[in-house]
Amino acid sequence: MSTHPAKPSMRDSLVAAAFQLFLERGYEQTTIDDIVKTAGVGRRSFFRYFPSKEDVVFPDHEQSLADMTEFLAASADTDDPLVRVCEATRLVMRMYAENPTFSVQRYRLTREVTGLRTYELSVVWRYEKTLGDYLRTRFADRRDGTLRANVVAAAVVAAHNHALRHWLRSGGEGDPLAEVDRALEFVRETWSPDAAAPAGADDDVVVVITKRSTPMWRVVREVESSLGES
Amino acid sequence: MSTHPAKPSMRDSLVAAAFQLFLERGYEQTTIDDIVKTAGVGRRSFFRYFPSKEDVVFPDHEQSLADMTEFLAASADTDDPLVRVCEATRLVMRMYAENPTFSVQRYRLTREVTGLRTYELSVVWRYEKTLGDYLRTRFADRRDGTLRANVVAAAVVAAHNHALRHWLRSGGEGDPLAEVDRALEFVRETWSPDAAAPAGADDDVVVVITKRSTPMWRVVREVESSLGES
Repeated sequence: MSTHPAKPSMRDSLVAAAFQLFLERGYEQTTIDDIVKTAGVGRRSFFRYFPSKEDVVFPDHEQSLADMTEFLAASADTDDPLVRVCEATRLVMRMYAENPTFSVQRYRLTREVTGLRTYELSVVWRYEKTLGDYLRTRFADRRDGTLRANVVAAAVVAAHNHALRHWLRSGGEGDPLAEVDRALEFVRETWSPDAAAPAGADDDVVVVITKRSTPMWRVVREVESSLGES
Repeated sequence: MSTHPAKPSMRDSLVAAAFQLFLERGYEQTTIDDIVKTAGVGRRSFFRYFPSKEDVVFPDHEQSLADMTEFLAASADTDDPLVRVCEATRLVMRMYAENPTFSVQRYRLTREVTGLRTYELSVVWRYEKTLGDYLRTRFADRRDGTLRANVVAAAVVAAHNHALRHWLRSGGEGDPLAEVDRALEFVRETWSPDAAAPAGADDDVVVVITKRSTPMWRVVREVESSLGES
């Protein structure tokens, strides 16, 4: 579960000890001293890995955010931005899917403890910001680029969380990656209907936008030109 | 500013005293005792209106959430749900717009204090949930109803916050309601393209969606029919 390069076993055992105690006596009733005692390590070791008790509940998000940032930075200008943010978001679900038992335990804990719920909201906000930063760059030449980037980022995160919540509520049953793909597909289709269609397919969709006052001959010319028939 | 029915003046003077002190000496350095002393009231009066120091920073959100809930509950089944959630969200911007100076001061405070930023995220989440609850009911008969409701609610909130942030960053200059209307229009058009177009307006935008394989004569007929010229 840990992705920390140095001494992964100590980090893992701190997380395991923390969750054992959270489940046994509750989150609020567990102190950092209890956790280090159970893990058999010193107090200083805890703070080497986690700034606070809340952070031990979400041990993988920093790495996951770094992975998402790296993935998006490696994008090509020819990539469809909608496809790209959906793929980046899929990485987060993969992290949850790697350890269903732990993910479900944490979900239940987060429902019960207000402080953890707010912590989670701030993590979600960082994912949304990471996606938004990438989209703002990609949409920079559009008049409504920033607005579009912010709205799409929020929609992608909402679709991911929809699938994630459904999977966690079911107790971690089923295929969470298939669920998130279905949810992300809804967003992708909304703003990038052509992206996933194979090139030259007979059912390409053409969208013509015109003002009601535009003369008919201009509308026809525009349609013909879009269809490559002029 | 206050919408509390009883003793609005005491509530208002607590908010005014709190903000005076936050600006003078900083949020962290101000205690609740300082606030009540400056407002000239007893400590118990503070807690009659606000559960914590954080709550005095956001004195209007509870009322605003109640207004939004009431507005959505008063919806008719014939209302376009997209138009309705955009109108509900506009109520929030109106609350900010009522007192630009206060809104801008609070915005700057929220940038500086992490605890207030997280508080704000939880408020935003409650607005999103309120909109989502309404949309889930309205989309209940769709196969993807819950997903669609969650994604649309997130998109509406993101559009609102886009306009709000822009206005606050500019120091409260310009017309925030016009800004939020433009942003919400983007979302409304995305999922409910037919809803708000005034009948017969000369600059209506017409969107024609067709398959690449559709014969030209059918495309033209479709465009003519959309323009009401057939």
